Amino acid sequence: MPFKAKNLKGTRDYSPSEVAKRNYMKNTIRHCFELFGFQPIETPSFEAIEFLEGLYGDEAETLIFKILNSGEKVKKANVEAFQKGDIPSFISSISDKALRYDLTVPLSRYVAQHQNEINFPFKRYQIQTVWRADRPQYGRLQEFVQCDADIIGRKSVLNEIDMLLLMDLIFDKLKLKNLTIKINHRQILEAFISAIGASNQFNPIVIELDKLEKIGLDKVISLLRDLGLNDTQLHDIKQFIAHPDGLENFAKQSTDAFQAYEELQSIKSQFEDLSSNDLNIKIEPTLVRGLNYYTGMILEVVSHENPSIGSLAAGGRYDNLTAKFGLQNVSGMGISLGFERIQILLEKQKEFPENIFNKIKVMFLNFGTPYINKAVGLTYELRLKGIKVEVYPNHVKLSKQLTYANSIGVENVVFHGPDEEKNRIFLVKDMISGKQKSMGYNELLDYFISIQ
Amino acid sequence: MPFKAKNLKGTRDYSPSEVAKRNYMKNTIRHCFELFGFQPIETPSFEAIEFLEGLYGDEAETLIFKILNSGEKVKKANVEAFQKGDIPSFISSISDKALRYDLTVPLSRYVAQHQNEINFPFKRYQIQTVWRADRPQYGRLQEFVQCDADIIGRKSVLNEIDMLLLMDLIFDKLKLKNLTIKINHRQILEAFISAIGASNQFNPIVIELDKLEKIGLDKVISLLRDLGLNDTQLHDIKQFIAHPDGLENFAKQSTDAFQAYEELQSIKSQFEDLSSNDLNIKIEPTLVRGLNYYTGMILEVVSHENPSIGSLAAGGRYDNLTAKFGLQNVSGMGISLGFERIQILLEKQKEFPENIFNKIKVMFLNFGTPYINKAVGLTYELRLKGIKVEVYPNHVKLSKQLTYANSIGVENVVFHGPDEEKNRIFLVKDMISGKQKSMGYNELLDYFISIQ
Repeated sequence: MPFKAKNLKGTRDYSPSEVAKRNYMKNTIRHCFELFGFQPIETPSFEAIEFLEGLYGDEAETLIFKILNSGEKVKKANVEAFQKGDIPSFISSISDKALRYDLTVPLSRYVAQHQNEINFPFKRYQIQTVWRADRPQYGRLQEFVQCDADIIGRKSVLNEIDMLLLMDLIFDKLKLKNLTIKINHRQILEAFISAIGASNQFNPIVIELDKLEKIGLDKVISLLRDLGLNDTQLHDIKQFIAHPDGLENFAKQSTDAFQAYEELQSIKSQFEDLSSNDLNIKIEPTLVRGLNYYTGMILEVVSHENPSIGSLAAGGRYDNLTAKFGLQNVSGMGISLGFERIQILLEKQKEFPENIFNKIKVMFLNFGTPYINKAVGLTYELRLKGIKVEVYPNHVKLSKQLTYANSIGVENVVFHGPDEEKNRIFLVKDMISGKQKSMGYNELLDYFISIQ
Repeated sequence: MPFKAKNLKGTRDYSPSEVAKRNYMKNTIRHCFELFGFQPIETPSFEAIEFLEGLYGDEAETLIFKILNSGEKVKKANVEAFQKGDIPSFISSISDKALRYDLTVPLSRYVAQHQNEINFPFKRYQIQTVWRADRPQYGRLQEFVQCDADIIGRKSVLNEIDMLLLMDLIFDKLKLKNLTIKINHRQILEAFISAIGASNQFNPIVIELDKLEKIGLDKVISLLRDLGLNDTQLHDIKQFIAHPDGLENFAKQSTDAFQAYEELQSIKSQFEDLSSNDLNIKIEPTLVRGLNYYTGMILEVVSHENPSIGSLAAGGRYDNLTAKFGLQNVSGMGISLGFERIQILLEKQKEFPENIFNKIKVMFLNFGTPYINKAVGLTYELRLKGIKVEVYPNHVKLSKQLTYANSIGVENVVFHGPDEEKNRIFLVKDMISGKQKSMGYNELLDYFISIQ
């Protein structure tokens, strides 16, 4: 019984035309990152599990893909723990590494490990795959690409503005329209949560608030009640969500928060002065970002027309990411673009350029061994000149070969059969115009160089 | 107690200068693949474990990284099997997917799954990461990149020749010298193993023979003895390895094998006629390739000067890769380049071009908020013109800023402090020549465009 060939749920195959689109996107994003002075790094797909713990929040941690210890090591499974219902100990006994969940935590490990080789401010970008064991749904895969840019080792509001301008440039180059950057500040959220007397639960509250768009107000309030918040506190939170314009008032309740509020206002107005494109910016008091590590400005980019795709980019300021590795007071500001979501939106907005697909300049038709052998040497010479060439590998019906040429987008085919050999010529057919042209054996190379 | 920041064994971090080298290599290889008419695809990092089984050989299968089932599913662990010592059943109960071990098996799944969308011959290339739980050593990582090109759905010796020419072009473009392509044919090996009366053990014997260079003749003979081969058979194998010139005689013992031998001779001479570069080709009777799926010509590229790196590329003809999925008689011919090994050799031969590193055209020095703000708007305009620009984010000592500019390879720095502001000028310093030039506010943009 043969297996049914199927890629796993939450993953995707990409065909040649899709890879062409993805390469176009990657090149555009990479180009913008480099214009802003970012340099690329690459880190491994898996890290020690202990590095990934305690940074994303408990719920997110359940979504980390763990790798089973290989070889003899799996024999150390702690089945007693399993039988006692202590699943975490059981898992620790059979797995010590995991696939990366984002690119920020690997970056923090990289910075701590290579601190003596790095010149700070370290401006790095990274375009790599990440994995999350999330329930697959629209715009949410288990394997996807993130494009991250971070400035590490300096705290300056210039970084925040630069990051907004960087996103502005990327979305402009990609020709994506009707997007908004929402910004907020963790210190304002802290002031608010402190004002309702729940500071000690800041992280869990923020994680629940982050679900607002996904699950709605009622469910969020119910989750917050489960955290132990009382009716007065829940009432204040509902008021805050219903009237986000009250942000300034909350901010005034603490010096730090008010400073943060003024910083946001100033960033917004500087961005509006500098940007020449149509990316909107908006201070959004209900924006929280679920990850534990943010400490300053946070941001998210969304599409008005397609909010169901989720955020296209997100990021923020963090102050202690490398603390886990004993490297204190390293502030960073980073953004992360959701590659597959941007791809979905580009498809919807039909903004992929025409010329990104790989065309084959010429294909030699196969009339059998004696005739095709004449072509093989020329083929190699054409390729040395940078011309993309295909040879049909078998002597099958000509109509079949021509159908194939059309299906893969060949621009010209070359006929070299018995008649052509007798006259020592090649017949070249332009597959777009349909025009034919015959030429001597020595002319073919120059012809294709001339029309390249 | 902080964690010690360390990437896992068998994995590597790549710094900006290393990524620049890797991108140069990827672009060169991709360009050559496309000149030969190959189109890119991408497949997921993980596949169902059942797809990966039975194709690589038992030993290789132990090197597949398995992913632990996530969430509630891990509670289905079959601890009874574990306690009875039935480790495979235990593993099956907690893991149903695995990281890809190569790019050929995912390709076979892709071809079977998308057969109705594909135009055959399907010429695809794929440059992606693969993972193997091998003991890390020189030239052997647990995570590495393979660059594969395969022609699927046709059987024609033109494919074999094209693949050899493709490798010839790639290694020539990369300027790698003193390489040899070794070729052999599985049907000749079959004839030999049949001649010594051991046909029923073909796959296990080939897997042991493949270790010849790694562990030496004595150990291979001992492993073959463990397989049950008798003294006469072992003697014949020793003779064969000691006198590979006897290949032709063995080949004559079977019609299929002799045909294969003649095919190899013809491929070799056609390759020598067509290739303009210095890649040597050699028929190597002891070349076996350990993977189970090869059926025809096999090949391997090695460096004379650095044999310890291992093979830089390998591949061959396979006839039944999609049979597992019920798609019969799909023949393919493929090659796979070992990206990290090629990188090691390029480092050794010092053949990375100078101009592949990312230079920052201009960095604005920071003299404090009022002075740097003048620059921020210009920065954005310069970037819109395609010029790579950096702004130093903080007002720190100038010497520190200049040291930083040098360390990241900035070509020009711009001074705009109190003096410059008074005179409404920028002072531009060329960091290579040391020459300085002052210019009015309006001249800066044009200046950098003119020297771009």
